[in-house]
Amino acid sequence: MNTPDTPGTPGTLDAPDNSAANPSANAPTRAGRKDVGPHTLADPDTPFAVVDVAKVRSNIERLATRAKTLGVALRPHVKTAKSLDVAALLHHGTPGPVTVSTLAEAEAFADGGYTDITYAVGIDPHKLPRVLALLRRGVTLSVLLDSVEQAQSVAEASRRAGVPIPALIEIDCDGHRGGVTPDAPELVRIGRVLQAATCLAGVLTHAGESYFAYTDDELRRAARNERDRAVDAAERLRAAGLPARTVSVGSTPTAHAADDLTGVTELRAGNYVFFDLVMAGIGVCRVEDLALSVVVTVIGHRPDHGWIITDGGWMAMSRDRGTSAQARDQGYGLVTDLVGELVPGLVMTAASQEHGTLTARDGAHLPELPIGTRVRILPNHACATAAQHRGYHVVDSASGTVAAPGIQDFWERVAGW
Amino acid sequence: MNTPDTPGTPGTLDAPDNSAANPSANAPTRAGRKDVGPHTLADPDTPFAVVDVAKVRSNIERLATRAKTLGVALRPHVKTAKSLDVAALLHHGTPGPVTVSTLAEAEAFADGGYTDITYAVGIDPHKLPRVLALLRRGVTLSVLLDSVEQAQSVAEASRRAGVPIPALIEIDCDGHRGGVTPDAPELVRIGRVLQAATCLAGVLTHAGESYFAYTDDELRRAARNERDRAVDAAERLRAAGLPARTVSVGSTPTAHAADDLTGVTELRAGNYVFFDLVMAGIGVCRVEDLALSVVVTVIGHRPDHGWIITDGGWMAMSRDRGTSAQARDQGYGLVTDLVGELVPGLVMTAASQEHGTLTARDGAHLPELPIGTRVRILPNHACATAAQHRGYHVVDSASGTVAAPGIQDFWERVAGW
Repeated sequence: MNTPDTPGTPGTLDAPDNSAANPSANAPTRAGRKDVGPHTLADPDTPFAVVDVAKVRSNIERLATRAKTLGVALRPHVKTAKSLDVAALLHHGTPGPVTVSTLAEAEAFADGGYTDITYAVGIDPHKLPRVLALLRRGVTLSVLLDSVEQAQSVAEASRRAGVPIPALIEIDCDGHRGGVTPDAPELVRIGRVLQAATCLAGVLTHAGESYFAYTDDELRRAARNERDRAVDAAERLRAAGLPARTVSVGSTPTAHAADDLTGVTELRAGNYVFFDLVMAGIGVCRVEDLALSVVVTVIGHRPDHGWIITDGGWMAMSRDRGTSAQARDQGYGLVTDLVGELVPGLVMTAASQEHGTLTARDGAHLPELPIGTRVRILPNHACATAAQHRGYHVVDSASGTVAAPGIQDFWERVAGW
Repeated sequence: MNTPDTPGTPGTLDAPDNSAANPSANAPTRAGRKDVGPHTLADPDTPFAVVDVAKVRSNIERLATRAKTLGVALRPHVKTAKSLDVAALLHHGTPGPVTVSTLAEAEAFADGGYTDITYAVGIDPHKLPRVLALLRRGVTLSVLLDSVEQAQSVAEASRRAGVPIPALIEIDCDGHRGGVTPDAPELVRIGRVLQAATCLAGVLTHAGESYFAYTDDELRRAARNERDRAVDAAERLRAAGLPARTVSVGSTPTAHAADDLTGVTELRAGNYVFFDLVMAGIGVCRVEDLALSVVVTVIGHRPDHGWIITDGGWMAMSRDRGTSAQARDQGYGLVTDLVGELVPGLVMTAASQEHGTLTARDGAHLPELPIGTRVRILPNHACATAAQHRGYHVVDSASGTVAAPGIQDFWERVAGW
């Protein structure tokens, strides 16, 4: 099924300076220099993250087509991949509108030429100096807020700096997390504070509860509700004489389920560039669409327990067990061979820091995977698994099927806050 | 209870180059240069990890005293802090024996002058070139294995390189993960393969199941069993005419419970430098001993749901929910003020990528925490939470109690594999 590594072959073990002995050959250095890297998925020391660019392209194309059909702009959330290289595929190489989850992402994307950025986490006033610094660089960075207190801080900072800070009001559409409801008295009060002193850009909502939808019908209802609540809020602001140019909605599930976005100006989604087992469990994608995986190596066997032990634990996969709440619990992930073909019935069922345990289910036979065999693990939650890695080794499944796919590039992630 | 941040004060928002506007001022640059950093926990943008060096010292002292009393050497596992600065406190500034979970740690610690390192994850033969490179540098790096296959790979690599590779045989003491049982026929076979061609250093075991012990008695039994199984295995090797100089046992729970380590040569533990809520739940430490926390900021309120929303989600805390299996589920963590005093009844109960939700329990009143208030979250699992950060801002609770503790240093972590 896959190509076990070939430990002990002459020339790999006795050359002190060969590339496998030099960790810096596995990835770019911290300074960003790209060394001459390994050539196939059999080469870098495991565990490491892999992105299949063919699947990323196809996932991106699918949502871009939907947005076009629905007549809305797309503002992808870059928090999943946190990669300028992945983002370059979103708008065909030209920096377009993006959503970020940290100011570190905003700064990295500004450095990469992006000038239209929404920071979609409620603003902490302490962070406003960095927001102002980006605005002064010519980046249209919109902040998010849901309280009069925050609006006053933003208004005050804007006034002192002489720089308008575009602000979106967060709307709660489904009781998931933050936001004001469209009928809350605060909505208009917040709008007035912003309008008086800075720049009220509009409203934004996120149907976070759609991750717990289980049927197409529930997803469609979540998408309609998300749209309705955002449009209601915008209309209420307008009725009060306030502007609401931007009406922003989205989550990966609702973006793929929406059938009518009248009144919405932009759609956000992030996870869809990679997808994951949680999204496959909801039915938003197929397991074959998953673009992110982690390559691990078999380091032990416990036939008495029915276990295969690998060197990929939660440090490589994250502790995310998102599918545990779904109809089909996928453990820490499903197992494929190095090419990406599912190994039937094999699941990563346990993780410690640097150990993973693979077990068979559904009556499947535990396959023979000798020490040194490499497999790929498809994650529960792409955002969390990707965050455990400094970047991605890039393969392209569209370029043909070989036992150990060639590595085309290394794409770095933006880290920290 | 704590010192809310002071957004909007003159001079912070309108100076484009002040330190708060410059993210590089919050932490050392990637090249390792330590910029003039922030002065108190009120300064860096949140979320960020904090280590209380007074608690680290006291946790280290406690186990060092135990090991001395028990008459065994201590080989701390550096996988939790992954920091040369924390490790410097282990052996009073002199590099001593350590355990690592990745070769990246081994390489970083070798660079830091450590010459006696055990790599305590079953060896993947593909990684042997990096092991040999460290041995050639004069580092005594021991590898771990539990199969004849691995022993043959190690023997072959050693023979080809002309460099003996010290190898420990992993013993399964409690069915937790890998290892051979002391009575398994493979034990002596592995020993013979190693002894014939390279260097059989001894045996190593880890009582991983002790994390699920719930009484002092269970912990003591786990510690005795761990010792007994390791010593049995060593004696069986010796009876077969094989050496077993090293008899290595340990886990944070058993290291603190062992009352007799006769026949054991060294004790390993890692988590104890920081401790965490899982360890407090087992009873190995008190909540007051926890040395690692994450500073987060209040960014929203949902009084209708009983929620306070912060800017610290699972990206800052990890997805680890270790206490969910314990008698007292601590959610994603307990909440303290900025000084480190517990806020009674307040728990972080939910996390998305960059949002945390705090709720009150046990009839506690949801405290008034205005937008911008900073609190610290004590984590379930220090190893997992620490891994979400590039390093630690260092405070010292022994230097007195002030509303916003002073930051003394920034300690970087070793990342990757």
